[in-house]
Amino acid sequence: MSTLDAAIQDLVMANHILANENIVDAYGHVSIRHPDNPQRFLLSCSRSPEFVQVDDILEFGMDGEPVVPGGKKPYLERFIHAGVYAARPDVHAVIHSHAADVLPFTISTRPLQPVLNTASGIGENVPVWDIRDRFGDTNILVESIAQADDLARTLAGNSVTLMRGHGFTAVGRTLIEVVKSAIYLPLNARVMLAALSLGGEIKPLSAGEIAIRLKTPIDSPAYTRAWEYWTNRVQQRAGAMTCACCAGKSDADRQEGK
Amino acid sequence: MSTLDAAIQDLVMANHILANENIVDAYGHVSIRHPDNPQRFLLSCSRSPEFVQVDDILEFGMDGEPVVPGGKKPYLERFIHAGVYAARPDVHAVIHSHAADVLPFTISTRPLQPVLNTASGIGENVPVWDIRDRFGDTNILVESIAQADDLARTLAGNSVTLMRGHGFTAVGRTLIEVVKSAIYLPLNARVMLAALSLGGEIKPLSAGEIAIRLKTPIDSPAYTRAWEYWTNRVQQRAGAMTCACCAGKSDADRQEGK
Amino acid sequence: MSTLDAAIQDLVMANHILANENIVDAYGHVSIRHPDNPQRFLLSCSRSPEFVQVDDILEFGMDGEPVVPGGKKPYLERFIHAGVYAARPDVHAVIHSHAADVLPFTISTRPLQPVLNTASGIGENVPVWDIRDRFGDTNILVESIAQADDLARTLAGNSVTLMRGHGFTAVGRTLIEVVKSAIYLPLNARVMLAALSLGGEIKPLSAGEIAIRLKTPIDSPAYTRAWEYWTNRVQQRAGAMTCACCAGKSDADRQEGK
Amino acid sequence: MSTLDAAIQDLVMANHILANENIVDAYGHVSIRHPDNPQRFLLSCSRSPEFVQVDDILEFGMDGEPVVPGGKKPYLERFIHAGVYAARPDVHAVIHSHAADVLPFTISTRPLQPVLNTASGIGENVPVWDIRDRFGDTNILVESIAQADDLARTLAGNSVTLMRGHGFTAVGRTLIEVVKSAIYLPLNARVMLAALSLGGEIKPLSAGEIAIRLKTPIDSPAYTRAWEYWTNRVQQRAGAMTCACCAGKSDADRQEGK
Repeated sequence: MSTLDAAIQDLVMANHILANENIVDAYGHVSIRHPDNPQRFLLSCSRSPEFVQVDDILEFGMDGEPVVPGGKKPYLERFIHAGVYAARPDVHAVIHSHAADVLPFTISTRPLQPVLNTASGIGENVPVWDIRDRFGDTNILVESIAQADDLARTLAGNSVTLMRGHGFTAVGRTLIEVVKSAIYLPLNARVMLAALSLGGEIKPLSAGEIAIRLKTPIDSPAYTRAWEYWTNRVQQRAGAMTCACCAGKSDADRQEGK
Repeated sequence: MSTLDAAIQDLVMANHILANENIVDAYGHVSIRHPDNPQRFLLSCSRSPEFVQVDDILEFGMDGEPVVPGGKKPYLERFIHAGVYAARPDVHAVIHSHAADVLPFTISTRPLQPVLNTASGIGENVPVWDIRDRFGDTNILVESIAQADDLARTLAGNSVTLMRGHGFTAVGRTLIEVVKSAIYLPLNARVMLAALSLGGEIKPLSAGEIAIRLKTPIDSPAYTRAWEYWTNRVQQRAGAMTCACCAGKSDADRQEGK
Repeated sequence: MSTLDAAIQDLVMANHILANENIVDAYGHVSIRHPDNPQRFLLSCSRSPEFVQVDDILEFGMDGEPVVPGGKKPYLERFIHAGVYAARPDVHAVIHSHAADVLPFTISTRPLQPVLNTASGIGENVPVWDIRDRFGDTNILVESIAQADDLARTLAGNSVTLMRGHGFTAVGRTLIEVVKSAIYLPLNARVMLAALSLGGEIKPLSAGEIAIRLKTPIDSPAYTRAWEYWTNRVQQRAGAMTCACCAGKSDADRQEGK
Repeated sequence: MSTLDAAIQDLVMANHILANENIVDAYGHVSIRHPDNPQRFLLSCSRSPEFVQVDDILEFGMDGEPVVPGGKKPYLERFIHAGVYAARPDVHAVIHSHAADVLPFTISTRPLQPVLNTASGIGENVPVWDIRDRFGDTNILVESIAQADDLARTLAGNSVTLMRGHGFTAVGRTLIEVVKSAIYLPLNARVMLAALSLGGEIKPLSAGEIAIRLKTPIDSPAYTRAWEYWTNRVQQRAGAMTCACCAGKSDADRQEGK
């Protein structure tokens, strides 16, 4: 398999993982920078991540437009990815999501802090981008490069930016890294919120702890075991959905009841 | 397929979607205005939405009574729909639900506000109707046109009214629009409640943002992708419930184990 | 089928419903007064409710002991049922549970109040019984008639008593009534807790509303539709667990993979 | 079956139970002291507990290293188990987990208290170990005997120690006992947190109650029924995942769709 084909397969699996872990639903998307051309990125056409297949993956330029025009309809908010890849050469994967547990922090003046070792990937500072600050009243979607560039400015060198009343955008050096951040960010948010309700002081991760954890090699079990686990869960759920005795059948046959 | 048949099929699917997304359970109902006669509306007989089928759909007049008397038993609270359709010519679909996450706001003096872009359909103001204000002690169900008219007066020109100790009634220009409002209203409630517990200020949607979002065309992915996603989830769950290898069998055969 | 056989079948279904709705887990139990002998009651042997079958149902006397000694091992806390049936001739069904959402109110000085129409069956007052008040340090289980009588005194004429650090006991005039109370009590608790966290005032049901709702006939859809819905959910889950294509097989054959 | 083989089978089932009850996910582990050699313990190689099989179980010495070197890759944090078994001769089983509901108490200055009878196994005092107190900035994982010894000092004679920003370690006289503690600890945490938000006073278990419950014999239904219940749930879920009509097939055959 070529590097590109392998990357696309991983991207499809990341779509299914994020859906299965309730990080995305009908909406939300995940992209990777093209492995052979840093001026391009790969992202599904406009489909719910749970249903994305290999031939849904399209190639985009830094203008946020499909390289091959006239194909499947792209996501309205594909510009988020374009803006981030342009501003951050170190970033190779981007996730946009509105996971429910993160949303309270997008509309509150209380900043989200990293409190869990598993969520150290979100970094020390988690800014909130409010589209209204610069663009006034909109439909709160990121539908232009100008808006995406503004989001990227708020993201700056961080790993995550929250988006007011909307969700978040997370970035990573690798696909696994950003998937892990996107999965543990909502947990971190829920735990911090609950800890605040206990009424005492809370202890976030220190800058030193985050810096040390950032050095974890990408082939460490901290990443590989998680990926294997999420993949297994996707496959198990697919099994539950179709019944293992149908596992040898094509999707089409199953849907037709053959 | 006739316009009416297509509308009924969509209404049946809306029943299943709302059940599958935990917006309704044993109770709750969804109706549409009759596509050919604005003085009538279509609503299931008294069944839990999860089990509603095409031949459960009955036709009602503006008095809340079935056009053809003596058929299947109607819902006790069908008057809600009659009252709303009479008062609001712009409304073509109505949902009554007691989704758990909305209930705290029905018994609190703190008003629910729209805070999420996906929930903009609930509108800027979400009034609370208390049946006791006008009717004193009752069983808290809407069992007459007089009560439904009173509810419609509280609803006024808004998209949703909460009902004290009971649930909510949401209205839409289309079936998809009201299904989306009913699904995102509980999420909006949960997120607002959580954000309040963070102790800082919260930022609701602005009136301008809501107005802009209201102009989203009904054939936008904001609606169509969601409908497709919810429909897929219904079908997947049905698959899990029955096993895909049984998908070609009739419900009756499956229940008898044939 | 005899009245007794029909009653036992309903009792088995109530066990499965309560398990399926997460009201009981490994522990918790449900009983009915014997339909032909008010001095006796019917309760499963010591099994998790999810797995209770017809031949697990034992007959007990008002001393809390099995009428036929030497049979299957009874629940340690069967005395709860004996004590309540002895003290309350109007009661025909009893549930003991430690559903999670109710537990906060068992350890708090803040009283639980009915706030939802669906939960009106819990009544206006929900006392908390603390075994330590009269019996000092114990294992917090109700293992004697003396303890059960004390619990029944706290229950008095109410429909539910909470049990400190433990759970609750609910009673009903019928099995359906108490199952409904047990299912909506945790929801009522969760909603009241959430409403308190909103910071405003809360509006409980009025005594008049509760009294009116208590007059709902037991053959009203308020009960029958709920029972049908819960039963369907039990059967659907069983279908998901075994696959509908196995539905005609005996449990034994399925477990052996035949 | 030998004592060792039976112990290993129970350990594998404990892995599956903890995964199925959401106490562990991709991470977390459970060990037992070797039944024939108290200087050794048994623990899986580095796999997510849900997927652990009999031949994944490795034997470790008190230095935290596998007795037979060069085999499957061990968990990074196996030292936790070594440190605890060395310090606590009374302990025969250990669980390390980061169950979500416990995490708020690991980062708060508010101590966790036992409030539920089912959670009495967690004991009267639940200390919090902060790796930073002695080791400064780290990756917050327990990767050496020195760190594990420090954790064991904080654990002291208690049944559970929380770990700041990370999770908890629970110990038991038997495997069932520690599994029960690990399952009810998160529930206890959730209930205590919710009770605090009610605003009144809360009533924890008394020292006398905890002491009495600690004397419950290990063959009491309090333990055996729970183990049976959790085991049944594991098997049911496996059935849902594979469909019972495939239950006679090997895992390999099923995965290949045979």
